[in-house]
Amino acid sequence: MSDQPSKRKAKKQKIFKPKARTPRGFRDMAGAELRLQNHMLDTISKVYESFGFEALDTSAFEYADALGKFLPDDDRPNEGVFALEDDDGQWMSLRYDLTAPLARHVAEHYDRLPKPLRRYQFGTVWRNEKPGPGRYRQFMQIDADTVGAGNQAADAEICMMAADCMEALGIQRGDYVVRINNRKIMDGLLEAVGLDLAADDYESRRLTILRAMDKYDRLGLDGVKALLGEGRKDESGDFTKGAGLDEVQIDKVAQMVTISADNRTDVLKRMAALVQGTQSGKQGLDELVEMAAIFTKLGYQTDRLKIDPSIVRGLGYYTGPVYEIELTFEAEDDSGELARFGSVGGGGRYDDLVKRFKGIEIPATGISIGVSRLAAALTLLGKGDAGAADPLVVVTVMDKDTRTDLMALVGDLRAEGIRAELYMGDSAMKAQLRYADARGARLVVIEGEDERAKGEVTLKDLRLGAEKSAEIDDNAEWRASEHAQKQVAKADLVAEIKKIIS
Amino acid sequence: MSDQPSKRKAKKQKIFKPKARTPRGFRDMAGAELRLQNHMLDTISKVYESFGFEALDTSAFEYADALGKFLPDDDRPNEGVFALEDDDGQWMSLRYDLTAPLARHVAEHYDRLPKPLRRYQFGTVWRNEKPGPGRYRQFMQIDADTVGAGNQAADAEICMMAADCMEALGIQRGDYVVRINNRKIMDGLLEAVGLDLAADDYESRRLTILRAMDKYDRLGLDGVKALLGEGRKDESGDFTKGAGLDEVQIDKVAQMVTISADNRTDVLKRMAALVQGTQSGKQGLDELVEMAAIFTKLGYQTDRLKIDPSIVRGLGYYTGPVYEIELTFEAEDDSGELARFGSVGGGGRYDDLVKRFKGIEIPATGISIGVSRLAAALTLLGKGDAGAADPLVVVTVMDKDTRTDLMALVGDLRAEGIRAELYMGDSAMKAQLRYADARGARLVVIEGEDERAKGEVTLKDLRLGAEKSAEIDDNAEWRASEHAQKQVAKADLVAEIKKIIS
Repeated sequence: MSDQPSKRKAKKQKIFKPKARTPRGFRDMAGAELRLQNHMLDTISKVYESFGFEALDTSAFEYADALGKFLPDDDRPNEGVFALEDDDGQWMSLRYDLTAPLARHVAEHYDRLPKPLRRYQFGTVWRNEKPGPGRYRQFMQIDADTVGAGNQAADAEICMMAADCMEALGIQRGDYVVRINNRKIMDGLLEAVGLDLAADDYESRRLTILRAMDKYDRLGLDGVKALLGEGRKDESGDFTKGAGLDEVQIDKVAQMVTISADNRTDVLKRMAALVQGTQSGKQGLDELVEMAAIFTKLGYQTDRLKIDPSIVRGLGYYTGPVYEIELTFEAEDDSGELARFGSVGGGGRYDDLVKRFKGIEIPATGISIGVSRLAAALTLLGKGDAGAADPLVVVTVMDKDTRTDLMALVGDLRAEGIRAELYMGDSAMKAQLRYADARGARLVVIEGEDERAKGEVTLKDLRLGAEKSAEIDDNAEWRASEHAQKQVAKADLVAEIKKIIS
Repeated sequence: MSDQPSKRKAKKQKIFKPKARTPRGFRDMAGAELRLQNHMLDTISKVYESFGFEALDTSAFEYADALGKFLPDDDRPNEGVFALEDDDGQWMSLRYDLTAPLARHVAEHYDRLPKPLRRYQFGTVWRNEKPGPGRYRQFMQIDADTVGAGNQAADAEICMMAADCMEALGIQRGDYVVRINNRKIMDGLLEAVGLDLAADDYESRRLTILRAMDKYDRLGLDGVKALLGEGRKDESGDFTKGAGLDEVQIDKVAQMVTISADNRTDVLKRMAALVQGTQSGKQGLDELVEMAAIFTKLGYQTDRLKIDPSIVRGLGYYTGPVYEIELTFEAEDDSGELARFGSVGGGGRYDDLVKRFKGIEIPATGISIGVSRLAAALTLLGKGDAGAADPLVVVTVMDKDTRTDLMALVGDLRAEGIRAELYMGDSAMKAQLRYADARGARLVVIEGEDERAKGEVTLKDLRLGAEKSAEIDDNAEWRASEHAQKQVAKADLVAEIKKIIS
């Protein structure tokens, strides 16, 4: 009967061999990068929770009609999302952010939710966009929103919380700032420059102007002015049509975006001058004044929370305060030049999103932090190993018959709180040491035959070994070095390991 | 100019109002349920990490050809997955488990990965199946796998780790057991009963027999026998075609699934008798003997890790040891009858999955724990509040002009490590107390006008209040009760709150 398995094998047909690859624009995450991400999610969640925000995890899919079309810089319906038709003919889309699903969630469960609702959510979002270097079609966001509070204390709270998040992650005061503006002031400005609110193309011109202003930090004043006027040709030769404002109008808008002062009161005064006589402008200013008073009372100075009229945000749905978290330290940009690191998140007040479903006004304000941008920033700041695991001990296997005993040894180390693992393959010692290296192990335990008889093991310090080998030219000399490894009685192993890794 | 905003409003057309609902078979998760889930993921991750498993997070999408078709009980290609065509014409599917993506990941990055690779992953998986009560199309799994280790120490380690996970979650010894079998023994059994390995329908008959055996706990011996023979009609009248074994064959298979003994050695002996003379059977037995020796050496007794020939697992791809985590305490099942809670996860050795891509054998073994089943179990065991947040203090707002001061008060409480939040809406005190209740707050702070003048606040203990109100018939009496609330000088507030919640 012993030949039957091979008969079975012979019967197998040639099988299609797929190529192992992640889909275009997608990737796996592991190791230090994933540890850092989990550390960030954990840290930010804790800050959000300390402010009374409760975790929510919405479904990955939404009905396409419920999701709406609120992608930034995208006015085409259903472009930019991954959608599929369910077997009952309804179209479902993978969420492209966490705000639209929140609006759906609140509308669906409105009666039984605490009001106002403070909720936070971290989760994967998907965008069906053209992938590029560092540009993926799946990424992670961590949002916090207050739904059902129309007052500016709710906006102020989220701005302060954003600042606290940065510091909880170890980003020092001065290396970040939350910049704050108000869409109503921008509407007041458009009114003040004489834009015709009744014109058919008002909404689209308004968005064009807002998005032009929002590009001040990236394009500079000339770029913004071009986009406010006839349009702008970028370096690649692509032409972006402008908002068609005249010189005088452009000048006034330019005055707004270039207002800069360290004192919140001064900034507000200069903004007021530009929107004088408009109701929207006055309302927006009142809201910012209220927020600024809260910041001052709670000790959040201008180095952390700044009023900045050049912050507009790209999304069409904001109705009041908007805010953006900017990292201000310098780093090399894509073209290798030193520049401010830039935005890692932002948000604002969106009082109409839930209304889409409910028909009644339900005010809301919230922030979204982009996890991968922030992770890149932390890495640049030398905090990329945050969330790293404890030092690892790898126990090798010289003689397979001792494996069970060595598993027991590993169990003993683990019981003592030492992160330890047994080499689980069947290769020789050289491969096992390579394995320990690849695993980033701090210590390796080797039990040779003679040692076993004596009740001893060899304890090898890979970090010390690496340091020594950098100092010592001669390889043989390094091997002979007694510093990187020593004989230890099994009874003393736990104490010895603890001494080294502490 | 003040009438312009209303002109704008008038211009708006009637907008389509979507119905707020999660897609069919999907749901949101929040509150205690989400906290419990996060607590479980955290606890299990820590156990996995202590064994040297490293976190991995694969892409949600896989190319359909890379994913293959390994859904349990499903031999139809691409049924049961959510798939869509990318704009370059390639089909992508959302992962339906975490094993197939691991095989793809290992094949893709084989050269740079440590070998063997211990990895764990928790993540959402999607199945395009008919939803039903408690049956969702999106759920969470937490897997651990060792890839590149062909020996049974790797299988044994995962079984021990599964047992440790249950205890780390607070499930007591005796309330769970990991049941272990080996597919090779099952193949030996089929050989021993004279199944023709060379027959064209061998593979499909083999799977039919294995799945019949796997249903022993659910259908009992008669049910299994029917499925091994002509077939079985269930209560709804649906007929499932059987494997077509004869009486003698059925009897031998039945002997196998009903073997039961508390002693691992005894079970192995009785299994050996049924597969005598077969190479597969001998190999499978040797493997189980080796695993049992490790369990015994490391002190994992039969109450935790049991050899059980009725454990077969539904998946076609297992090649060696298979294991299942069963919760043994009794709970009401769907029909209201008391029954063992049952399986919360399982796995086994699958030496061929990576081979699909690489062409070379890369042995692997791993386990998958279903998070929602396990959460349901923990809730039944009275551990549903695991991971609960600290007691919450809600500060109410009597007079809106004091809101900024009260925000500062909340900030002070938070700085002292007290979870505190300000009521952020604009409603009256009654709604604010309802809010505090809905938020599950332990304490409420109220600052009335007179109190403000005196530098005092009222501290209301909602839990004590609820207890008192259960004792006291008269509502007025309860309101007057001094136990549930007291006046506290603002300077003593932190100390007073800490005294109550500690």
